[in-house]
Amino acid sequence: MVLPPSRDLRVPGEPPFSGIQTRKQSEATMNILEGIYSRRSIRNFTDKPVEQRDVLEIIKAGTWAPSGLNNQPWRFVIIRSSGVRNSLARLTRYGTIVKNAPICIAVFVDRDAMYDNAKDHQAMGACIQNMLLAIHALGLGAVWLGEILKNAEAVRLLLELPDTNELMAVVALGHPASRDQQSQRKDISEVILNEC
Amino acid sequence: MVLPPSRDLRVPGEPPFSGIQTRKQSEATMNILEGIYSRRSIRNFTDKPVEQRDVLEIIKAGTWAPSGLNNQPWRFVIIRSSGVRNSLARLTRYGTIVKNAPICIAVFVDRDAMYDNAKDHQAMGACIQNMLLAIHALGLGAVWLGEILKNAEAVRLLLELPDTNELMAVVALGHPASRDQQSQRKDISEVILNEC
Repeated sequence: MVLPPSRDLRVPGEPPFSGIQTRKQSEATMNILEGIYSRRSIRNFTDKPVEQRDVLEIIKAGTWAPSGLNNQPWRFVIIRSSGVRNSLARLTRYGTIVKNAPICIAVFVDRDAMYDNAKDHQAMGACIQNMLLAIHALGLGAVWLGEILKNAEAVRLLLELPDTNELMAVVALGHPASRDQQSQRKDISEVILNEC
Repeated sequence: MVLPPSRDLRVPGEPPFSGIQTRKQSEATMNILEGIYSRRSIRNFTDKPVEQRDVLEIIKAGTWAPSGLNNQPWRFVIIRSSGVRNSLARLTRYGTIVKNAPICIAVFVDRDAMYDNAKDHQAMGACIQNMLLAIHALGLGAVWLGEILKNAEAVRLLLELPDTNELMAVVALGHPASRDQQSQRKDISEVILNEC
Protein backbone atom coordinates (compact mmCIF):
# COMPACT_ATOMS: atom_id res chain seq x y z
CA MET A 1 0.00 0.00 0.00
CA VAL A 2 1.32 3.44 -0.86
CA LEU A 3 0.25 6.19 1.52
CA PRO A 4 -0.02 9.75 0.23
CA PRO A 5 3.38 11.30 0.94
CA SER A 6 2.49 14.45 2.83
CA ARG A 7 -0.67 13.70 4.77
CA ASP A 8 -0.82 15.73 7.94
CA LEU A 9 -1.64 13.39 10.80
CA ARG A 10 -1.96 16.04 13.47
CA VAL A 11 -5.37 16.40 15.00
CA PRO A 12 -6.38 20.02 14.45
CA GLY A 13 -6.84 22.24 17.48
CA GLU A 14 -5.60 19.79 20.04
CA PRO A 15 -4.48 21.29 23.32
CA PRO A 16 -3.34 18.88 26.03
CA PHE A 17 -6.03 17.88 28.53
CA SER A 18 -5.28 19.06 32.08
CA GLY A 19 -1.73 19.80 31.01
CA ILE A 20 -0.99 16.15 30.29
CA GLN A 21 0.19 15.23 26.80
CA THR A 22 -1.42 12.22 25.23
CA ARG A 23 0.86 9.49 23.92
CA LYS A 24 2.77 10.08 20.71
CA GLN A 25 1.28 8.13 17.83
CA SER A 26 4.66 6.68 16.91
CA GLU A 27 4.68 4.65 20.11
CA ALA A 28 1.79 2.46 19.03
CA THR A 29 2.80 0.65 15.87
CA MET A 30 0.29 -2.18 15.52
CA ASN A 31 -1.29 -1.97 12.08
CA ILE A 32 -5.01 -1.55 11.63
CA LEU A 33 -6.00 -4.90 10.16
CA GLU A 34 -3.72 -6.77 12.54
CA GLY A 35 -5.32 -4.86 15.41
CA ILE A 36 -8.87 -5.51 14.28
CA TYR A 37 -8.25 -9.26 13.92
CA SER A 38 -6.14 -9.82 17.02
CA ARG A 39 -8.19 -7.77 19.53
CA ARG A 40 -9.90 -9.93 22.12
CA SER A 41 -12.02 -9.23 25.19
CA ILE A 42 -9.70 -9.16 28.20
CA ARG A 43 -11.31 -9.84 31.57
CA ASN A 44 -8.27 -10.38 33.82
CA PHE A 45 -5.72 -7.72 34.55
CA THR A 46 -2.40 -7.39 36.35
CA ASP A 47 -1.95 -4.89 39.18
CA LYS A 48 0.14 -2.60 36.97
CA PRO A 49 -1.49 0.83 36.85
CA VAL A 50 -2.65 2.38 33.59
CA GLU A 51 -0.93 5.65 32.77
CA GLN A 52 -3.14 8.71 32.55
CA ARG A 53 -1.77 9.63 29.13
CA ASP A 54 -2.98 6.26 27.84
CA VAL A 55 -6.46 6.80 29.29
CA LEU A 56 -6.65 10.17 27.56
CA GLU A 57 -5.39 8.70 24.27
CA ILE A 58 -8.12 6.03 24.48
CA ILE A 59 -10.80 8.65 24.98
CA LYS A 60 -9.36 10.83 22.24
CA ALA A 61 -9.46 7.83 19.88
CA GLY A 62 -13.11 7.33 20.82
CA THR A 63 -13.95 10.91 19.94
CA TRP A 64 -12.47 10.49 16.45
CA ALA A 65 -15.27 8.12 15.51
CA PRO A 66 -17.69 9.47 12.94
CA SER A 67 -21.15 10.57 14.08
CA GLY A 68 -24.23 11.68 12.18
CA LEU A 69 -24.11 15.45 11.58
CA ASN A 70 -20.81 15.25 13.51
CA ASN A 71 -22.89 15.62 16.68
CA GLN A 72 -20.26 13.82 18.83
CA PRO A 73 -22.80 12.65 21.42
CA TRP A 74 -20.25 10.70 23.52
CA ARG A 75 -19.35 11.59 27.12
CA PHE A 76 -16.97 9.79 29.49
CA VAL A 77 -16.31 9.22 33.16
CA ILE A 78 -12.89 7.87 34.15
CA ILE A 79 -13.19 5.65 37.23
CA ARG A 80 -10.02 4.73 39.11
CA SER A 81 -11.41 4.83 42.65
CA SER A 82 -11.76 1.35 44.12
CA GLY A 83 -14.67 2.59 46.22
CA VAL A 84 -16.61 3.67 43.16
CA ARG A 85 -15.63 0.51 41.28
CA ASN A 86 -16.89 -1.59 44.16
CA SER A 87 -20.23 0.21 44.08
CA LEU A 88 -20.36 -0.17 40.31
CA ALA A 89 -19.55 -3.87 40.67
CA ARG A 90 -22.78 -4.42 42.61
CA LEU A 91 -24.76 -3.27 39.57
CA THR A 92 -23.61 -6.00 37.20
CA ARG A 93 -23.25 -9.74 37.03
CA TYR A 94 -19.67 -9.04 35.94
CA GLY A 95 -18.76 -7.24 39.15
CA THR A 96 -15.53 -9.19 39.57
CA ILE A 97 -14.18 -7.69 36.37
CA VAL A 98 -15.15 -4.16 37.41
CA LYS A 99 -13.61 -4.65 40.86
CA ASN A 100 -10.35 -6.03 39.53
CA ALA A 101 -9.80 -3.72 36.56
CA PRO A 102 -7.52 -0.82 37.51
CA ILE A 103 -9.70 1.53 35.47
CA CYS A 104 -13.21 1.60 34.12
CA ILE A 105 -14.40 4.15 31.61
CA ALA A 106 -18.15 4.66 31.76
CA VAL A 107 -19.39 5.76 28.35
CA PHE A 108 -22.52 7.88 28.15
CA VAL A 109 -24.56 9.43 25.38
CA ASP A 110 -25.69 13.02 25.86
CA ARG A 111 -29.42 12.92 25.12
CA ASP A 112 -29.39 16.65 24.34
CA ALA A 113 -26.89 16.01 21.54
CA MET A 114 -28.84 13.10 19.99
CA TYR A 115 -30.89 13.38 16.79
CA ASP A 116 -31.77 9.78 15.87
CA ASN A 117 -31.74 6.82 18.26
CA ALA A 118 -30.44 4.18 15.85
CA LYS A 119 -27.82 6.44 14.28
CA ASP A 120 -26.64 7.83 17.60
CA HIS A 121 -26.33 4.34 19.05
CA GLN A 122 -24.33 3.35 15.97
CA ALA A 123 -22.04 6.34 16.55
CA MET A 124 -21.59 5.28 20.17
CA GLY A 125 -20.63 1.80 18.97
CA ALA A 126 -18.10 3.28 16.55
CA CYS A 127 -16.68 5.36 19.42
CA ILE A 128 -16.39 2.36 21.74
CA GLN A 129 -14.78 0.27 18.99
CA ASN A 130 -12.16 3.01 18.44
CA MET A 131 -11.51 2.91 22.19
CA LEU A 132 -11.09 -0.88 22.17
CA LEU A 133 -8.72 -0.70 19.21
CA ALA A 134 -6.70 2.09 20.82
CA ILE A 135 -6.50 0.08 24.07
CA HIS A 136 -5.22 -2.90 22.08
CA ALA A 137 -2.74 -0.74 20.16
CA LEU A 138 -1.36 0.60 23.44
CA GLY A 139 -0.64 -2.91 24.69
CA LEU A 140 -3.56 -2.85 27.12
CA GLY A 141 -6.69 -4.97 27.19
CA ALA A 142 -10.37 -4.34 27.81
CA VAL A 143 -13.84 -5.75 27.84
CA TRP A 144 -16.96 -3.93 26.65
CA LEU A 145 -19.62 -4.44 29.34
CA GLY A 146 -23.21 -4.07 28.16
CA GLU A 147 -25.11 -6.14 30.70
CA ILE A 148 -24.76 -3.31 33.24
CA LEU A 149 -27.14 -1.21 31.11
CA LYS A 150 -29.97 -2.94 32.99
CA ASN A 151 -28.89 -0.62 35.83
CA ALA A 152 -28.09 2.41 33.67
CA GLU A 153 -29.99 4.80 35.92
CA ALA A 154 -28.31 3.52 39.07
CA VAL A 155 -24.90 3.97 37.43
CA ARG A 156 -25.80 7.52 36.45
CA LEU A 157 -26.88 8.33 40.01
CA LEU A 158 -23.77 6.69 41.48
CA LEU A 159 -21.64 8.93 39.27
CA GLU A 160 -23.80 11.96 40.14
CA LEU A 161 -24.52 12.92 36.54
CA PRO A 162 -27.48 14.89 35.24
CA ASP A 163 -30.25 12.83 33.64
CA THR A 164 -29.36 14.04 30.16
CA ASN A 165 -26.60 11.42 30.25
CA GLU A 166 -27.56 7.85 29.47
CA LEU A 167 -25.16 4.97 30.08
CA MET A 168 -24.12 3.20 26.87
CA ALA A 169 -21.37 0.88 28.13
CA VAL A 170 -18.66 0.40 30.71
CA VAL A 171 -15.20 -0.37 29.36
CA ALA A 172 -13.05 -2.15 31.96
CA LEU A 173 -9.37 -2.00 31.10
CA GLY A 174 -5.88 -2.69 32.31
CA HIS A 175 -2.75 -4.64 31.52
CA PRO A 176 -3.82 -8.12 30.38
CA ALA A 177 -3.01 -10.94 32.78
CA SER A 178 -2.89 -13.27 29.75
CA ARG A 179 -3.31 -13.15 25.99
CA ASP A 180 -4.61 -16.57 25.05
CA GLN A 181 -8.25 -15.57 24.43
CA GLN A 182 -9.96 -17.22 21.48
CA SER A 183 -12.89 -15.88 19.51
CA GLN A 184 -14.94 -17.01 16.56
CA ARG A 185 -16.71 -15.34 13.69
CA LYS A 186 -18.97 -16.59 10.95
CA ASP A 187 -17.21 -16.92 7.61
CA ILE A 188 -17.89 -13.88 5.43
CA SER A 189 -19.69 -16.13 2.94
CA GLU A 190 -22.40 -16.51 5.59
CA VAL A 191 -22.97 -12.78 6.03
CA ILE A 192 -22.73 -11.56 2.42
CA LEU A 193 -26.34 -11.72 1.31
CA ASN A 194 -25.83 -10.79 -2.30
CA GLU A 195 -23.49 -9.22 -4.80
CA CYS A 196 -24.74 -7.24 -7.77
CA MET B 1 4.96 -0.84 22.84
CA VAL B 2 6.05 -4.47 23.17
CA LEU B 3 3.70 -6.98 21.61
CA PRO B 4 3.52 -10.49 23.04
CA PRO B 5 6.03 -12.49 20.99
CA SER B 6 3.98 -15.42 19.80
CA ARG B 7 0.46 -14.16 19.33
CA ASP B 8 -1.24 -16.01 16.50
CA LEU B 9 -2.86 -13.42 14.25
CA ARG B 10 -4.59 -15.89 11.97
CA VAL B 11 -8.36 -15.80 12.00
CA PRO B 12 -9.48 -19.30 13.00
CA GLY B 13 -11.36 -21.36 10.42
CA GLU B 14 -11.07 -18.92 7.58
CA PRO B 15 -11.60 -20.42 4.14
CA PRO B 16 -11.38 -18.04 1.17
CA PHE B 17 -14.74 -16.64 0.04
CA SER B 18 -15.68 -17.67 -3.51
CA GLY B 19 -12.17 -19.01 -3.97
CA ILE B 20 -10.66 -15.54 -3.66
CA GLN B 21 -8.00 -14.91 -1.03
CA THR B 22 -8.37 -11.79 1.04
CA ARG B 23 -5.41 -9.43 1.22
CA LYS B 24 -2.44 -10.35 3.36
CA GLN B 25 -2.33 -8.31 6.54
CA SER B 26 1.27 -7.32 5.96
CA GLU B 27 0.24 -5.22 2.98
CA ALA B 28 -1.64 -2.72 5.11
CA THR B 29 0.82 -1.18 7.51
CA MET B 30 -0.90 1.96 8.77
CA ASN B 31 -0.92 1.86 12.56
CA ILE B 32 -4.12 1.94 14.54
CA LEU B 33 -3.95 5.34 16.19
CA GLU B 34 -2.64 6.96 13.02
CA GLY B 35 -5.52 5.36 11.14
CA ILE B 36 -8.16 6.45 13.64
CA TYR B 37 -6.96 10.07 13.60
CA SER B 38 -6.28 10.43 9.87
CA ARG B 39 -9.44 8.76 8.51
CA ARG B 40 -11.77 11.22 6.81
CA SER B 41 -15.07 10.89 4.94
CA ILE B 42 -14.22 10.60 1.23
CA ARG B 43 -16.99 11.61 -1.17
CA ASN B 44 -15.13 11.78 -4.51
CA PHE B 45 -13.46 8.83 -6.15
CA THR B 46 -11.30 8.10 -9.16
CA ASP B 47 -12.41 5.64 -11.85
CA LYS B 48 -9.93 3.04 -10.65
CA PRO B 49 -11.81 -0.14 -9.75
CA VAL B 50 -11.69 -1.61 -6.25
CA GLU B 51 -10.23 -5.10 -6.13
CA GLN B 52 -12.53 -7.84 -4.93
CA ARG B 53 -10.00 -9.05 -2.38
CA ASP B 54 -10.11 -5.58 -0.79
CA VAL B 55 -13.90 -5.63 -0.63
CA LEU B 56 -13.80 -8.98 1.11
CA GLU B 57 -11.11 -7.79 3.52
CA ILE B 58 -13.28 -4.78 4.41
CA ILE B 59 -16.27 -7.00 5.15
CA LYS B 60 -14.12 -9.42 7.11
CA ALA B 61 -12.82 -6.52 9.19
CA GLY B 62 -16.43 -5.51 9.85
CA THR B 63 -17.29 -8.97 11.10
CA TRP B 64 -14.45 -8.84 13.65
CA ALA B 65 -16.25 -6.16 15.61
CA PRO B 66 -17.55 -7.26 18.99
CA SER B 67 -21.28 -7.85 19.43
CA GLY B 68 -23.43 -8.58 22.46
CA LEU B 69 -23.57 -12.34 23.07
CA ASN B 70 -21.36 -12.54 19.93
CA ASN B 71 -24.62 -12.53 17.93
CA GLN B 72 -22.90 -11.04 14.84
CA PRO B 73 -26.10 -9.46 13.52
CA TRP B 74 -24.43 -7.82 10.46
CA ARG B 75 -25.24 -8.70 6.86
CA PHE B 76 -23.84 -7.17 3.68
CA VAL B 77 -24.71 -6.59 0.03
CA ILE B 78 -21.87 -5.67 -2.35
CA ILE B 79 -23.12 -3.34 -5.07
CA ARG B 80 -20.92 -2.80 -8.13
CA SER B 81 -23.67 -2.61 -10.77
CA SER B 82 -24.11 0.95 -12.05
CA GLY B 83 -27.77 0.15 -12.72
CA VAL B 84 -28.39 -0.75 -9.09
CA ARG B 85 -26.31 2.21 -7.88
CA ASN B 86 -28.36 4.56 -10.05
CA SER B 87 -31.57 3.19 -8.52
CA LEU B 88 -30.07 3.48 -5.05
CA ALA B 89 -29.00 7.05 -5.83
CA ARG B 90 -32.62 8.10 -6.24
CA LEU B 91 -33.29 7.13 -2.63
CA THR B 92 -30.91 9.61 -1.05
CA ARG B 93 -30.00 13.26 -1.14
CA TYR B 94 -26.43 12.05 -1.62
CA GLY B 95 -27.19 10.25 -4.89
CA THR B 96 -24.20 11.75 -6.68
CA ILE B 97 -21.86 9.99 -4.27
CA VAL B 98 -23.63 6.65 -4.72
CA LYS B 99 -23.62 7.02 -8.50
CA ASN B 100 -19.94 7.91 -8.70
CA ALA B 101 -18.54 5.47 -6.15
CA PRO B 102 -17.27 2.31 -7.88
CA ILE B 103 -18.69 0.22 -5.04
CA CYS B 104 -21.30 0.58 -2.36
CA ILE B 105 -21.66 -1.86 0.50
CA ALA B 106 -25.17 -1.87 1.94
CA VAL B 107 -25.00 -2.89 5.60
CA PHE B 108 -28.02 -4.56 7.15
CA VAL B 109 -28.91 -5.91 10.55
CA ASP B 110 -30.61 -9.30 10.69
CA ARG B 111 -33.64 -8.74 12.92
CA ASP B 112 -33.78 -12.44 13.71
CA ALA B 113 -30.29 -12.22 15.20
CA MET B 114 -31.01 -9.14 17.33
CA TYR B 115 -31.55 -9.23 21.10
CA ASP B 116 -31.48 -5.56 22.20
CA ASN B 117 -32.05 -2.56 19.93
CA ALA B 118 -29.52 -0.21 21.50
CA LYS B 119 -26.81 -2.84 21.92
CA ASP B 120 -27.31 -4.28 18.43
CA HIS B 121 -27.17 -0.82 16.89
CA GLN B 122 -23.96 -0.20 18.82
CA ALA B 123 -22.54 -3.45 17.43
CA MET B 124 -23.51 -2.35 13.93
CA GLY B 125 -21.68 0.93 14.50
CA ALA B 126 -18.59 -0.95 15.70
CA CYS B 127 -18.78 -3.13 12.56
CA ILE B 128 -19.08 -0.12 10.24
CA GLN B 129 -16.21 1.64 12.01
CA ASN B 130 -14.01 -1.43 11.49
CA MET B 131 -14.96 -1.31 7.80
CA LEU B 132 -14.06 2.39 7.53
CA LEU B 133 -10.73 1.82 9.25
CA ALA B 134 -9.96 -1.17 7.01
CA ILE B 135 -10.87 0.90 3.93
CA HIS B 136 -8.50 3.61 5.11
CA ALA B 137 -5.76 1.08 5.89
CA LEU B 138 -6.05 -0.33 2.37
CA GLY B 139 -5.45 3.10 0.82
CA LEU B 140 -9.10 3.49 -0.16
CA GLY B 141 -11.66 6.01 1.03
CA ALA B 142 -15.32 5.90 2.01
CA VAL B 143 -18.25 7.76 3.40
CA TRP B 144 -20.81 6.33 5.83
CA LEU B 145 -24.25 7.28 4.48
CA GLY B 146 -27.04 7.36 7.06
CA GLU B 147 -29.53 9.76 5.49
CA ILE B 148 -30.64 6.98 3.11
CA LEU B 149 -32.20 5.17 6.11
CA LYS B 150 -35.29 7.32 5.53
CA ASN B 151 -35.80 4.95 2.57
CA ALA B 152 -34.59 1.78 4.28
CA GLU B 153 -37.57 -0.28 3.10
CA ALA B 154 -37.18 0.86 -0.51
CA VAL B 155 -33.50 -0.10 -0.41
CA ARG B 156 -34.37 -3.52 0.95
CA LEU B 157 -36.94 -4.07 -1.80
CA LEU B 158 -34.53 -2.82 -4.50
CA LEU B 159 -31.99 -5.39 -3.30
CA GLU B 160 -34.71 -8.08 -3.10
CA LEU B 161 -33.99 -9.02 0.50
CA PRO B 162 -36.39 -10.64 2.98
CA ASP B 163 -37.93 -8.27 5.52
CA THR B 164 -35.84 -9.71 8.35
CA ASN B 165 -33.03 -7.47 7.04
CA GLU B 166 -33.10 -3.81 8.04
CA LEU B 167 -30.80 -1.27 6.42
CA MET B 168 -28.30 0.25 8.84
CA ALA B 169 -26.04 2.22 6.47
CA VAL B 170 -24.61 2.41 2.99
CA VAL B 171 -20.84 2.66 2.75
CA ALA B 172 -19.75 4.22 -0.57
CA LEU B 173 -16.09 3.55 -1.32
CA GLY B 174 -13.36 3.78 -3.89
CA HIS B 175 -9.96 5.28 -4.55
CA PRO B 176 -9.98 8.84 -3.17
CA ALA B 177 -9.88 11.62 -5.78
CA SER B 178 -8.20 13.82 -3.15
CA ARG B 179 -7.03 13.64 0.44
CA ASP B 180 -7.35 17.18 1.73
CA GLN B 181 -10.49 16.65 3.84
CA GLN B 182 -10.57 18.40 7.18
CA SER B 183 -12.56 17.42 10.25
CA GLN B 184 -13.02 18.72 13.75
CA ARG B 185 -13.65 17.21 17.15
CA LYS B 186 -14.37 18.68 20.55
CA ASP B 187 -11.34 18.67 22.82
CA ILE B 188 -11.44 15.71 25.20
CA SER B 189 -11.73 18.10 28.14
CA GLU B 190 -15.24 18.91 26.85
CA VAL B 191 -16.41 15.30 26.80
CA ILE B 192 -14.85 13.96 30.01
CA LEU B 193 -17.62 14.56 32.54
CA ASN B 194 -15.78 13.46 35.61
CA GLU B 195 -12.84 11.53 36.98
CA CYS B 196 -12.99 9.65 40.25
